[in-house]
Amino acid sequence: MDNFTFQSPTKFVFGKGTETQVGDLVKQTGATKVLIHFGGGSVQRSGLLDRVKASLDAAGIPYVSLGGVLPNPTDKIVYEGIELCRKENVDLILAVGGGSSIDSAKAIGVGVPYEGDFWDFYSGKKHAKKTLPVATVLTIAAAGSEGSESSVITKEEGSFKRGYTEELIRPVFSILNPALTQTLPQNQTAAGAADIMAHIFERYYTNTLDVEVTDRLCEALLLTMLHELPKVIADPNDYEARANIMWTGMVAHNNLIGVGRQQDWSSHGIEHELSALYGIAHGAGLAVVFPAWMKYTMHHDVMRFAQMATRVFGCDMDFANPERTARMGIERLEAFWSSCGLPIRLQDVGGREEDISYLAGHIGLGDGTMGSFVPLTTSDVIGIYKLMLR
Amino acid sequence: MDNFTFQSPTKFVFGKGTETQVGDLVKQTGATKVLIHFGGGSVQRSGLLDRVKASLDAAGIPYVSLGGVLPNPTDKIVYEGIELCRKENVDLILAVGGGSSIDSAKAIGVGVPYEGDFWDFYSGKKHAKKTLPVATVLTIAAAGSEGSESSVITKEEGSFKRGYTEELIRPVFSILNPALTQTLPQNQTAAGAADIMAHIFERYYTNTLDVEVTDRLCEALLLTMLHELPKVIADPNDYEARANIMWTGMVAHNNLIGVGRQQDWSSHGIEHELSALYGIAHGAGLAVVFPAWMKYTMHHDVMRFAQMATRVFGCDMDFANPERTARMGIERLEAFWSSCGLPIRLQDVGGREEDISYLAGHIGLGDGTMGSFVPLTTSDVIGIYKLMLR
Repeated sequence: MDNFTFQSPTKFVFGKGTETQVGDLVKQTGATKVLIHFGGGSVQRSGLLDRVKASLDAAGIPYVSLGGVLPNPTDKIVYEGIELCRKENVDLILAVGGGSSIDSAKAIGVGVPYEGDFWDFYSGKKHAKKTLPVATVLTIAAAGSEGSESSVITKEEGSFKRGYTEELIRPVFSILNPALTQTLPQNQTAAGAADIMAHIFERYYTNTLDVEVTDRLCEALLLTMLHELPKVIADPNDYEARANIMWTGMVAHNNLIGVGRQQDWSSHGIEHELSALYGIAHGAGLAVVFPAWMKYTMHHDVMRFAQMATRVFGCDMDFANPERTARMGIERLEAFWSSCGLPIRLQDVGGREEDISYLAGHIGLGDGTMGSFVPLTTSDVIGIYKLMLR
Repeated sequence: MDNFTFQSPTKFVFGKGTETQVGDLVKQTGATKVLIHFGGGSVQRSGLLDRVKASLDAAGIPYVSLGGVLPNPTDKIVYEGIELCRKENVDLILAVGGGSSIDSAKAIGVGVPYEGDFWDFYSGKKHAKKTLPVATVLTIAAAGSEGSESSVITKEEGSFKRGYTEELIRPVFSILNPALTQTLPQNQTAAGAADIMAHIFERYYTNTLDVEVTDRLCEALLLTMLHELPKVIADPNDYEARANIMWTGMVAHNNLIGVGRQQDWSSHGIEHELSALYGIAHGAGLAVVFPAWMKYTMHHDVMRFAQMATRVFGCDMDFANPERTARMGIERLEAFWSSCGLPIRLQDVGGREEDISYLAGHIGLGDGTMGSFVPLTTSDVIGIYKLMLR
């Protein structure tokens, strides 16, 4: 196990009706003016936004609003948010929505007190020293941004999707009411679940030895997803299953399960290109990418894949042929995702073989590599995209 | 799953040599004078105390020291610590040691700014509104106090052992260097491991339904203990196994695995009487108490015990007779603890059948009950103590 530092100071307020506490929670932070930052009309139609505003009103907290965050949020709305916060002297940003609203709120947060262009942080030029506090009211179990130290924004010009990781940007509090996710359509629920599972895989596949405790925690969360997701697919109103998935989504990505071990996020990079080109949900793209990435990299550490296959996917260990077990685990993952209505091949998301060289090239590896479990060259990435074909 | 709030803001600095960061970490909190609070001579003999002092010196942080904390720490040293902190204008308490030093430090922390008697908090009369910050350098994986919101102190007069739980008392930072635990004798290592496993059982046995994610997390940590503890028993210098156990000890008790579910801490209460009467380590007592508590309560929810038996202890599920599986799980737990040199019967810790009515009476239930999975009367507690007999 490697040395590490871990601090997850976010206050999580979890359960039915908890969004009505938002006003009091904001007040406890000492904030005096809030930017409510949200996406499309669903939070308006559902009445959630009204309940949030009523709670802020009751606590005597003034606010301004900025809606219109799109999936895979772009720099454009971040610049708008920064300007609005400065003009209105906002001192806390409240994201009401999913990962897109939260990631965008985090970008606004670090942008407001910074004199330069917030993109400096996402392009790796600078590290933020200050941020406006960000709080969240979560409406989908997926990105884990409600507890994480990361944010992903797309630069519209050139459609570059880049992540920023910094302890400073963890939310001060996050309200998680699983009932708010009951109205999600199946494809969004399933894509969110794939995103959660991907966050676990990205920590699981490591070259760090002797990481039993984090291995077991990863496996625990995956087993939970296998147990709970089919219940939600069968009955979207299953509050209890929604609750188990929502908490899993947070634990999967606040990095408790990833400490002390090398992680490999190349799948995320490979997926970002799919989202960008085909306009699909990040989680749906991950369901396509992961089986291919696994098949391509499994020979690097067959026993780790066999461990996942037996401990999580209930495969019988083939002691004479561990590779067979490893492969069976990947097939069960595909079957599981497929049974939940997720795409698992490039064609399922409208992708075509002839796009592959563009997709691989746009990642911009040049002569370099990405990832750590197996460092991938552009040629490796092409190989992985090809394994996504039906 | 029940509604809950969870916040674990402690900064964990984990790994080899991390105790040399203590000066800088104290400085970052803004503290200006430290009380170093520790137990016996081992932290002196090992040179740890000198390294801690050197780090504080290098950071320009003055300190005073108060050693002599005993296992099952008492109110006497807490009063001493409170007086010393007030006299010396201490503004951060640094516990260097295990659960005893940390619990005692937490009691001093809430006692210093309080005008009344700190015991008011432990006797349930008052809730603390302020505390001096507490930080830790951990020397044994056991109590989980390095990340928890709880503390247990024994009042010497009448030897009443009482716990206090309050979010305020979570440490501000905790330094976890597994190498510091390599010099522990086997009996202390094993007792610490039993304490960790007990913290998981106390959360696992619940009447709350639909808690798959926390069930799985509990099971993950138990599986880790089964995997790692025998390695440490075989080779006390196995750093990697020590590391896995040390992080498990924290996660087992900062309550991440216990959120949204009823918990049952009656075993802790039953054990406290064993520690008090026979002067044994808390963990060793828990190894005696738990199998008996499990046998006594298993009929309340046989399937939950069978789930533990199959998922953690690798028992074959006997679908025709789940009780047989449940019982086999308890037997495997006993065999595991026994193989690690832990006591599992009352006589193993010097207990006698004729002490049982005193032990049960001293808990002071009167006509009341304790616990929630199965509320226990004094007569139930007697039944449990009897099941500890060989």
